[in-house]
Amino acid sequence: MTYRAPVAEMAFTLRHVAGLDRAIAEGLHGDLSEDLVDTILEEAGRFANDVVAPLNRVGDRHGTPLKDGVVTMPPGYREAYRAWTEGGWNALPGPVEYGGQGLPVLLNAACIEMWNSAAMAFGLGPLLTAGGVEALSRHGSEELRARYLEKLVSGEWTATMNLTEPQAGSDLSVMRTRAEPAGDGSYRISGEKIYITWGEHDLTDNIVHLVLARLPDAPAGTRGISLFLVPKVLPDGSRNALACAGIEHKLGIHGSPTCTMVYDGATGWLVGEPNRGLACMFTMMNNARLGVGLQGVAIAERAYQQALAYARDRRQGRAASATEGASAIIEHPDVQRMLLTMKALTAASRGICYLTAEAIDRAHRATDEAGRKAAQTRASLLTPVAKAFSTDIGIEVASLGIQVHGGMGFVEETGAAQHLRDARIAAIYEGTNGIQAIDLVTRKLPLEGGAVVRGQIGAMRLVVERVLKEGGPAFGHTAPRLRETIESLDRATGYLLKALGSNRPEEALAGATPYLRLFGLAQGGACLALSALAANAATKAGDTDPAHPARIALARFFAENLATGARGLAETVTGGGGFLQDGALALAG
Amino acid sequence: MTYRAPVAEMAFTLRHVAGLDRAIAEGLHGDLSEDLVDTILEEAGRFANDVVAPLNRVGDRHGTPLKDGVVTMPPGYREAYRAWTEGGWNALPGPVEYGGQGLPVLLNAACIEMWNSAAMAFGLGPLLTAGGVEALSRHGSEELRARYLEKLVSGEWTATMNLTEPQAGSDLSVMRTRAEPAGDGSYRISGEKIYITWGEHDLTDNIVHLVLARLPDAPAGTRGISLFLVPKVLPDGSRNALACAGIEHKLGIHGSPTCTMVYDGATGWLVGEPNRGLACMFTMMNNARLGVGLQGVAIAERAYQQALAYARDRRQGRAASATEGASAIIEHPDVQRMLLTMKALTAASRGICYLTAEAIDRAHRATDEAGRKAAQTRASLLTPVAKAFSTDIGIEVASLGIQVHGGMGFVEETGAAQHLRDARIAAIYEGTNGIQAIDLVTRKLPLEGGAVVRGQIGAMRLVVERVLKEGGPAFGHTAPRLRETIESLDRATGYLLKALGSNRPEEALAGATPYLRLFGLAQGGACLALSALAANAATKAGDTDPAHPARIALARFFAENLATGARGLAETVTGGGGFLQDGALALAG
Repeated sequence: MTYRAPVAEMAFTLRHVAGLDRAIAEGLHGDLSEDLVDTILEEAGRFANDVVAPLNRVGDRHGTPLKDGVVTMPPGYREAYRAWTEGGWNALPGPVEYGGQGLPVLLNAACIEMWNSAAMAFGLGPLLTAGGVEALSRHGSEELRARYLEKLVSGEWTATMNLTEPQAGSDLSVMRTRAEPAGDGSYRISGEKIYITWGEHDLTDNIVHLVLARLPDAPAGTRGISLFLVPKVLPDGSRNALACAGIEHKLGIHGSPTCTMVYDGATGWLVGEPNRGLACMFTMMNNARLGVGLQGVAIAERAYQQALAYARDRRQGRAASATEGASAIIEHPDVQRMLLTMKALTAASRGICYLTAEAIDRAHRATDEAGRKAAQTRASLLTPVAKAFSTDIGIEVASLGIQVHGGMGFVEETGAAQHLRDARIAAIYEGTNGIQAIDLVTRKLPLEGGAVVRGQIGAMRLVVERVLKEGGPAFGHTAPRLRETIESLDRATGYLLKALGSNRPEEALAGATPYLRLFGLAQGGACLALSALAANAATKAGDTDPAHPARIALARFFAENLATGARGLAETVTGGGGFLQDGALALAG
Repeated sequence: MTYRAPVAEMAFTLRHVAGLDRAIAEGLHGDLSEDLVDTILEEAGRFANDVVAPLNRVGDRHGTPLKDGVVTMPPGYREAYRAWTEGGWNALPGPVEYGGQGLPVLLNAACIEMWNSAAMAFGLGPLLTAGGVEALSRHGSEELRARYLEKLVSGEWTATMNLTEPQAGSDLSVMRTRAEPAGDGSYRISGEKIYITWGEHDLTDNIVHLVLARLPDAPAGTRGISLFLVPKVLPDGSRNALACAGIEHKLGIHGSPTCTMVYDGATGWLVGEPNRGLACMFTMMNNARLGVGLQGVAIAERAYQQALAYARDRRQGRAASATEGASAIIEHPDVQRMLLTMKALTAASRGICYLTAEAIDRAHRATDEAGRKAAQTRASLLTPVAKAFSTDIGIEVASLGIQVHGGMGFVEETGAAQHLRDARIAAIYEGTNGIQAIDLVTRKLPLEGGAVVRGQIGAMRLVVERVLKEGGPAFGHTAPRLRETIESLDRATGYLLKALGSNRPEEALAGATPYLRLFGLAQGGACLALSALAANAATKAGDTDPAHPARIALARFFAENLATGARGLAETVTGGGGFLQDGALALAG
């Protein structure tokens, strides 16, 4: 069972959930037409299906062996990567002045989903390159931009992010890597970085490392960290003093080399202001976080496709509705529940990620300052939800995919288990999901005194009003269930804002993870309802595409079966903080 | 980080949650004393810690290679297995007349948990042997019992269960393996069986296969299946016509060989009546299901211990409560939430499994027929919950354990990932968790017209009454939250019984999985509350063991943070069945 990019569903979500139509009509995307969007999605889908998807298993099996400092990528990766960059896929969202196509982040979000569904280990590298492009574009000197951006935009070279050190993971303040001025405007970088994705590989002639390090006179903590560009191959063609010293043996994404990088007086150049490296890195991270969220969606989609195909094929037992012979297991209500859960969670997290991408586009492209500002804060609010909710869903859906397969799911040859192994990292890297929840609660909720989150909740309420007005019997209890979910979110939000405002941050921190889940359920439910409303309108207008009633049924399933957890989550947020007093006690015993 | 058997916590749960004290006081366990229970637990704990736990990693790495029909177990397994049987651990629950020690299933449940925490792949084999002992004791002829039981009870030989064929997994009715009478009372068995745990290995001189097959004149379907004993080595010392034809390459439990077994006219003997094999096999399965549930508890416990140790050691960031330097991550509320969730879910599923074991003991040992009958139905009701809830928890807790480790959790050397890989199978084998949910709803709820489940709910309510009466401020909102959970279970139960009684089984099937989860939350919460009540009484009586306040805090955490999902689950059960009408539609689109 291989992957088929769900191009029609993606296009529908881009338009009717994330509002790409509206943005195009407003002229935010220049001469981009809806037809061109469809053409690009179809071509990307073909490439993902035919060229990238076959790499998934081979990457898992082959891994990325390291020998004498050289990392050998899995068979087929080099050819596929070259075809992929030559097809212009890396350049799709890149700045036009450096050879990019300047297409919307939103359109690229759908493409990112495809590459990562097809082979997450393959799709991961370009996410880092995109972060490098973003950081260099925004913070790099003219010289650095001139020297590196074009090749990073095209994908001729790849980029990496070097943050983590053994003692400095989620907490970068204790980072030790040093940068000494060389006197000629360059620096000598020394230190060891771990968990460097695509830190070394044989796909391209050069690799551009973006490395956080401390200048000699830097203040302690996170305010003394600077960002440096450290290429594998120096401009004069010589090898820089850096090497891959080890490769991690990981649970999943075996086709993506996770490297220990050693910088031994390597030549680098400052990116941005001294001691402002963390801000530059966050430029990379924010985009990368959406990309990782899309990986969650991507794995969920692929796991769902595989489970669905198996459930249609595998015959066991006789369903209550059947009269003779064994039924396909998809006929059994419990299997149907698993598949619907997989599909609904996937679609909900896709909606959230696409919505976030749309906000990022608008933050750059809206014609008025107020519009850009509003979109920027909305993107800030949604990014941790897109990252954490979607990657949690990636794990849950991949695990359900194994379950649908029964015993075969546990056998590696089936391929279902790889999805769970691959999915597991996405909840950890680019800031663990706990860090995302803390970011959401302590930094994003207080934006504009809570007005940003209230505005988002208000937008969700409007969706419920529309369902009440426009939705027919096929919507079942979608409206009341979704309303309850949103009001639960509202209550929990009020509680957290009050805790933060009353200088009780621990209470907010204690409820952060269930709150993020609750936010995802409400926002995801609203996304599915938007999709259902558009499907309903299309059906009423005479469109007989069976995908339309499917969208209505899926929104209903989500509201009646999954969003039902919202009230309990709100109760956990508002009433579960008792463990702050006695939790340490409970763990001590 | 290795494993330390939580002997004190197990002993406390055996007594105060599962009521071992009471059973001993009633004389159900002969001359077994509480002191002897403690001694056995301590010795088992020492053996698990020192001998079995070191096998866990080596089993994962080495696997069980098959060459020329011979399966080589991982280094150290043979010596450990021999020491384990010689220590009498296999014989602990076995029948006295065949050399067993006849000790309670409940006491053995704690031991099973230890072996499987220490090394699940190692602990798995003896679970199958125990099932074989049970089936032979109950259904085997005197001759078969005389020839095989003693060596299976001691563990000198191991047993297997052979059910699954490629086309017959959850649905055994389409099984094809044949048995031809040989004319001398024996049969010739021919067919292929897959997923046979410990089907071939080099730990013992003989392996006793219990194989389901069809007699020549057997009716179609499950009423034409008979059970046969087919030894690897025949009584005359010659090799039987059976072989291991393949080993699965699995996600986890690499130290446990999962074999394809080919029977090519192998000699076997009928166990039980012709065409009644499924009933005999269910004798094995029911015990095995509790054993698999205990594996879920076991993996959860080990994952928790590892995560707790890491969180105490690893320093990142400064907690709100700290004034300088980096804090151990256990100080951060979000990490504390993860650890408390792990500990609470583990303790809840332990309580449910031990409660089930106690009911099994009482079903055999109660002095009056009515007491045995009541215990038997209670055991029937609880077994699917023990199996499915605990194994779902095993997966969730192992996954959280990875998350607590951050990036290190994804690196195989850390060991956290192995727990997730190992745990994943327990939700599948011995009847998938979906099958357990269906069994609970369609076969167990209707027992005695619903009186059995109502009785169990009534017992849970009494726990809430006790918390209201005896619990102090440290119990927080334990009582109201737990009451809400139990009343949610009651509502969902009423709905399902009505659906079943009104000949709408699909509605019951549709809600089976969320119902089982809900049952687990209510029963698990009641178990933790029982533990907390006993701890509270001990503290009041002057016992200063810090484990006591920890138990109260844990019950509170569970009620206020995890059981809060109950109402939503009940809503899903009672209002989520809409997908029976339009679910196929939603999946078609």
